[in-house]
Order: sequence, then C-alpha cells, then structure tokens
Amino acid sequence: MEFHYPNGRKYENLSAGNQKSPAAANYSNRGMTLEEDLNETNQYYLANGMAVIHKKPTPVQIVHVDYAKRSTAVIKEAYFRQASTTDYNGVCEGRYIDFEAKETKSRTSFPLKNFHSHQIEHMHHVVNQNGIAFVIIRFSATEEIFLLESKFLFEFWDRMVSGGRKSISKKEIVAHGHKIKLGYRPKIDYLKVVREIYEF
Amino acid sequence: MEFHYPNGRKYENLSAGNQKSPAAANYSNRGMTLEEDLNETNQYYLANGMAVIHKKPTPVQIVHVDYAKRSTAVIKEAYFRQASTTDYNGVCEGRYIDFEAKETKSRTSFPLKNFHSHQIEHMHHVVNQNGIAFVIIRFSATEEIFLLESKFLFEFWDRMVSGGRKSISKKEIVAHGHKIKLGYRPKIDYLKVVREIYEF
Repeated sequence: MEFHYPNGRKYENLSAGNQKSPAAANYSNRGMTLEEDLNETNQYYLANGMAVIHKKPTPVQIVHVDYAKRSTAVIKEAYFRQASTTDYNGVCEGRYIDFEAKETKSRTSFPLKNFHSHQIEHMHHVVNQNGIAFVIIRFSATEEIFLLESKFLFEFWDRMVSGGRKSISKKEIVAHGHKIKLGYRPKIDYLKVVREIYEF
Repeated sequence: MEFHYPNGRKYENLSAGNQKSPAAANYSNRGMTLEEDLNETNQYYLANGMAVIHKKPTPVQIVHVDYAKRSTAVIKEAYFRQASTTDYNGVCEGRYIDFEAKETKSRTSFPLKNFHSHQIEHMHHVVNQNGIAFVIIRFSATEEIFLLESKFLFEFWDRMVSGGRKSISKKEIVAHGHKIKLGYRPKIDYLKVVREIYEF
C-alpha cells in the first residue's frame, strides 16, 4: 500500500481558515481557488437539483490515533497517499460524470506532470464504462478556464509517453477545449458545457 | 466546517497490517472484512472491465503537517470528519452506482443509527438524478449479506423519523432485500443483483 508523500508536491488542501501564509491571498498563489469555486458550483447544482457531484476527500493513510479524549479522537500520525482516481465524480440525469481539476501558472502551456498515470488510466476505465470523463484546466495568470474532454487528454498523454512534448500547449487547449465563462452563480458552469458536448 | 469525531464511534479503518489488537482476527470483530471484501470485489470488476467503483477515502480535516523531511510530509494533527455522502460510487455501463455498506452483530435487526441523515439525503439526491442507490447490509453473526434498494431504506428511515422503530427487522430485510451469495471471485457479487433489479 502506497502512503508516501509525493516528492516535491506541496500540500495546498487546507481550508482557507488554516492557511497562514500571507501569500495565500495573492492571485499567483490561490491554490484553493479552483477547488473552492468548483465546490461552490457543485453545491449550487445540488441545491438546484441539477446534479450530485462531490470532491473526494484527500486520501490519507492513518497510522496513529489518540483516543485520550472520548469525544475527540486526534490523528497524531498520518501520511498522504497518491489518489488512484480523479478528484470529482457524480451523476447528472443518469449520466456518470468524472473529472480532475488542475491549474497552472504558465501562460503558454499546461504541464502533463500535473497528472499521474493511474489517473489517466482511471479516466480510460470510466470512458470504457460509458461514463463522461474530462479535465478542467485553469490558467491562473489569465483566469481562463477550459474543459478538455478525456479523448484529447489521452492523445496528448500518449504523445508524451511516446517521446513527444511533456505538456499541452495553450493553443491546443484553445483549439480542442471548451472555454468556460466565469459566472456568479454557478461560478464555473461546467455542466452546461458537458451537456452541450454530450447532448443531454 | 465539521471536523469533530463522531461520538463513541471507534475508528476501524486501518489497514489489516496496522491492526495490533489480537481481537482483530476474531470473527466477532472483523470490522474491516466487509470493506475489504468489497474492495476486492471492486478490483475484480475493474480488472474484468465490468465496472469502475471505488471506495471514497475517509474524510479527514488536516490541521498540522510537518514538512521537516522533504520527501515525507507527516500529518501531525488531524480529525475525523463526518462523511456527507455514501462510501462507494462509480459507473457500470453508463449507469451511476452509489452505495453504503454496513454490518451489524445483531441477529434480529439492523439499527438505523448506522446511517447519518445526510447520507439518506444524499441517496435521495442520487435517485432524483436517476442514479442507482442502495445499501449492502451484512449480518456478521450469520455471515449473510443483503442488498437493500434505497426506496426501502427511505421507507424504514421515514418510519423512524415519524416515531416508529429505530431499526429494520431482519424479516423486513429478508422480505424486501436481495440476498447476495458469497463467492470466491468476486467475493460479494452485488453487481449481478443490481443488474437484475435495474435490468441492464
């Protein structure tokens, strides 16, 4: 069982209230923003009976729990595990929906190192079961958000695996992806794009 | 954000290798068995292209992470959070599948306190989106496993809420549920039952 911490990856999953770094408020370092905006969007969908989509909890390997206080067990030792699936999944009008959300500070390309090979594998499995799989990519510098269908992600991934470039160029994302307009409620209306693409 | 530990509930989610209690091997205390058997079943489904169904990680609120060693971040303080959804979900031939798995030592009934109200709510949401929701109930004393469709769970839940009994009698589960035969591979072939019920 893997439970080591992926090298070099900084943990940015604390809730806003726990982030003590002043940089957290800057635009260039809003590690939570995409996730928060998507969670809000998903809550909007849920409240309006449009879809039931949730983010999965961060996988953690728990080693030691302190039961000293009866009412509050404290986890004293635990490790991050690598996710074996994507972060978000759920259902909309009978359709299974599965996606990963990532952002990059780059203005010109999206680095594929943002994905693990088993996440790509997972998306293949989903598509083979007639599920809908895609990725939401945010370019933080320009605040642009794109939805890229898994079939294109697979193409670019395979290109890398067979020795090609290790990223998807912004041009390619613009050409193959769907830009999602930022709104107020919902903030990132990806479902609209999904329903247009898959016609339901 | 809730992150307190649900009162009185013992944490039984450690992997087998970490369980030091000798009681863990006894039949009366196989807290992990149903989960392990379902994980194995789901892996079988995945390996054979039959379905993509995963257990969600245990939700944990992380408060303090020690980054002293670059390669291994250690979570030093974290708390259990209450799950807002069911534990398992995924897709089978385009159908969204969502369930909770619970076991009881009782021989005569299944206590409804095994569920939180928001889990029931979640299953309502799923059904409203034309997803398939159910519960897998294991009577550990007799090693019997039943699949109970959410519509029956809702009935028994509502009966409790309106002042009726706080459990589902074994008789009721036998009458409304579907017994799942234990097998070798897969161990708990719930998908077979699901496909019979929903005819796909």
